[in-house]
Amino acid sequence: MAAEITVDTQARPVTGVRLATGRIAGAERDHLLMIEIARGSCVGAVFTQNSFRAPPVVLAERNLRVAPARALLVNAGNANAGTGRTGYDNALSLCAETARLLNVGVDSVLPYSTGVIGEQLPALAIREQIPALVKALSADKWPDAATAIMTTDTRPKLASCVFQSEGQTYRVTGIVKGVGMICPNMATLLAFIATDAPVARADLQRLTRQVVDRTFNRITVDGDTSTNDAFTLISTGTHSLQPFQPEAPAWSELQTAVTAVALQLAHAVVRDAEGGTKFIGVQVEGGRSEKECLQVAYTLAHSPLVKTAAFAGDPNWGRLLMAIGRADVSQLDTERVTIFLDDLCVFDRGQPHEQYREAAGARVMAQPAFDIRVLLGRGTASAKIWTSDLSYEYVKINAEYRT
Amino acid sequence: MAAEITVDTQARPVTGVRLATGRIAGAERDHLLMIEIARGSCVGAVFTQNSFRAPPVVLAERNLRVAPARALLVNAGNANAGTGRTGYDNALSLCAETARLLNVGVDSVLPYSTGVIGEQLPALAIREQIPALVKALSADKWPDAATAIMTTDTRPKLASCVFQSEGQTYRVTGIVKGVGMICPNMATLLAFIATDAPVARADLQRLTRQVVDRTFNRITVDGDTSTNDAFTLISTGTHSLQPFQPEAPAWSELQTAVTAVALQLAHAVVRDAEGGTKFIGVQVEGGRSEKECLQVAYTLAHSPLVKTAAFAGDPNWGRLLMAIGRADVSQLDTERVTIFLDDLCVFDRGQPHEQYREAAGARVMAQPAFDIRVLLGRGTASAKIWTSDLSYEYVKINAEYRT
Repeated sequence: MAAEITVDTQARPVTGVRLATGRIAGAERDHLLMIEIARGSCVGAVFTQNSFRAPPVVLAERNLRVAPARALLVNAGNANAGTGRTGYDNALSLCAETARLLNVGVDSVLPYSTGVIGEQLPALAIREQIPALVKALSADKWPDAATAIMTTDTRPKLASCVFQSEGQTYRVTGIVKGVGMICPNMATLLAFIATDAPVARADLQRLTRQVVDRTFNRITVDGDTSTNDAFTLISTGTHSLQPFQPEAPAWSELQTAVTAVALQLAHAVVRDAEGGTKFIGVQVEGGRSEKECLQVAYTLAHSPLVKTAAFAGDPNWGRLLMAIGRADVSQLDTERVTIFLDDLCVFDRGQPHEQYREAAGARVMAQPAFDIRVLLGRGTASAKIWTSDLSYEYVKINAEYRT
Repeated sequence: MAAEITVDTQARPVTGVRLATGRIAGAERDHLLMIEIARGSCVGAVFTQNSFRAPPVVLAERNLRVAPARALLVNAGNANAGTGRTGYDNALSLCAETARLLNVGVDSVLPYSTGVIGEQLPALAIREQIPALVKALSADKWPDAATAIMTTDTRPKLASCVFQSEGQTYRVTGIVKGVGMICPNMATLLAFIATDAPVARADLQRLTRQVVDRTFNRITVDGDTSTNDAFTLISTGTHSLQPFQPEAPAWSELQTAVTAVALQLAHAVVRDAEGGTKFIGVQVEGGRSEKECLQVAYTLAHSPLVKTAAFAGDPNWGRLLMAIGRADVSQLDTERVTIFLDDLCVFDRGQPHEQYREAAGARVMAQPAFDIRVLLGRGTASAKIWTSDLSYEYVKINAEYRT
C-alpha cells in the first residue's frame, strides 16, 4: 500500500506548468485561463458523454489524438455549445492564435469552454487578449486560475499534495469548477490536475480514467450531465527521469496522490453545489454488482423528495425507501433491506427499527455532512457517491441564471 | 373511429357504485373513503412497480386475484408503507371489518392508503368509523370522495363523461389524487374510474392496462414513483346486458370514453403538481422507437435545469439540448436534431435557428401551458408526456411536509 497522502489547498507550483488569467475588455473579473505545458509532457483527458458535445470538446479530443498538448485555453461564462460550425471555427481560431504566439503546432492547443449553452463565443474579444495571456504566464498562478474558471461557483476549488518516491519528491496540484449541471458521465465539469511525476502517454490516459471513475464520476448535484465536461491530467515529468511504470511499486504512490487530489476537488464541487446546504455521502452495500449499488445510490441522490428532505433536515426515511424501491433493482427482496443514517439504524430488514426514534434521525440530518447507508442484503458489492440537497436557493440560482 | 367524447367535471353517478366519506375522531377533514360496488361488477387494477409496495397494495392485489371485488376502503394521510407485518395486519383488519358490515367475503374488500411513508396506520381509530361509512353510502358522493383522498393536493380532481352505444347511454366517472412523488410506472397514484358499461373481467384488465399506458403512465412531476400507486377501473354493468366485446365496434366507444376521462384526470394531476406553475407537454418525434422517444421526453421532464428554466419562463434552450444529449440515445446524430417551443423553431438540425429571437421564446414560455417538441430525425416513432416545473414552492412543500 501507498503511504498516506495529505491533500490541502496550498497551491504548489508544478515544474513544467505555467498559467495566466485575463478578461475581455469590459469584463468585471478574469474569466480566461491559459495553461502552458513544457515540451515532453503528457496529457490524459476524458470528456463528457453527452451527445451534444460542445465544439471545444470535439476539437480538444481531436487535437489530443494527433499531437502532444502544449497549451490549454479556457474561457468561463460561455460554453460554446449548441453553436454548430461557427462555434467550432471560433474555437479553432483561438487555438490558432495561441499556437502562433507560443510557437507550437495548432494541434497542440486544447480549447475548453464553460457557461451558458447556445450563444456564440465573443471570439474576437477573446483573441485580443491572447498576447497578454502569453506574456503573463507564470508557475505560481494556480489560485488565479481556480478563480478564473468559475461560473456560478461561489469559491475557487484547488487541491494539492506532495508524494515521495525513491527519494524524489513530486507534486500534484489541481483545480476544478462546477456546481450545477453536475452528474458527470465518464468525465466531468472542468478539472485540471498537473503532476511533475513523469508518466508515459498511454499509462497516463489509463490513470486518468481510473482516477475519474473513483472520483468525479462518483458525484452528482442535479443529475444533469453537461455538454462541456472535461477532466485533464497533465504529467510534465522531465526527460532526465524514467517514467513511472504501472507495475512498479512507485505507481501506487502516484495513483494514490492523484486520486486523493481528484477526490478532494470532486468533494469541493459537491460542497459548493448550487444552493447546497448539505454534503451527503450515499453508500450502498450488499449488492450483487457495483452497477446495481450505483443504480440505487444515484436514484437516492437524484430523488427530489430525498433531496428536499435533506434540505429540511427531516429524517423522512419513507422517501429513502421509496427511492430504493424505484431504483429498478431486479427482484429486490425488501425484507432484507436495511437503512442507516450515519450509524443510526432506521429501517431493519423490511421493518422500522424498533429502537429508532425520530429525534435521533433529526440529529444526524441536522449536520452539515452525513451519510445515507443502505444494505441490500443480496451480495458483496458496494459503491459510494456524494451529493447535495435541493433548496430554495437551487431553484433561485437556476431560475435566474442568464436573466 | 369512435364519436367525439366530451369530458367535464360534472359528477355523474354510476349505477352500481355507492360512496361514503368520513374521518377519524379529531381529524379536521374527511380522509376516509369507502366505495361499494354492486354484485356482478368487474374490477381491473394496476399497482406501483416500486419494490417497496405498501402492505395495502400487496393485499389489494392478492384479493383481486382470489375474489370479485365488492368494496374499496381508502385512507389519505398515511401510506401504510414500509410498515412490515404490522402494516399488513392493520390493512387486513380494516378489510375484515368492512366485509363483515357489508356482508361480503373478506377477500372482496380492497384496501388503499396514501400519505406519509413509514408510520403505522391508526387502525383502531379508522375501524371505529367503518359502521358510519357503511351507513352513509350513496351514489352521489363522487365530489366528496375526490376531496377525501387528497393529501398535498390543492383541489379535488374529478372527470366524467357519457357515451352512447347501440341506443344505450353509459357513464364513466373517475377521481384521482396525487401531486408529488409522481412518476407512475405501470400504474399511478390513487385513481378510481367507474363505468356502468358491462365488461368481462379479463377484457377489463386488458382495458385497464391500455388506458394506463396512454394516460397515467405518461405524466411525471418529480420522477419519484410512489410505493402506493394504484389505478382501479370498475365496470358495474348489469346482468341484463351483454358485456362489451373487444372485437365489437362498441368497444372503441368505451375505450375512447375511459381513456378520455383518465387523460383528463392525469392532466389534472400535473396541473395541480406540487408547486407547479406550468403545464408542459413534451413531445418527441422522429425516434427509432417509442422507447427512445420516451427516454428523451422523460430526461427533459426530469431535468432540474429544464424545470427551473420553465419556472422562470426562460427560453434557455441550451438546457433542452443538454438534456436531449444526456438521454443516452445510442448514436444520436445531433446534426439532425430540431427543437420547437410550441410552433417556434429554436434549434434547427444542429444549429441555432437563424430567425429565432429570444423574445419570441420568452413569449411561449410565459404561457401557463406550452409544448416542448423535439425532432430526432432518425425514425418514425413518437411519444408525448406531460410534466410540471420546479419552483420555490415545490421545495417548500417537500421540505415542510410532515414537519
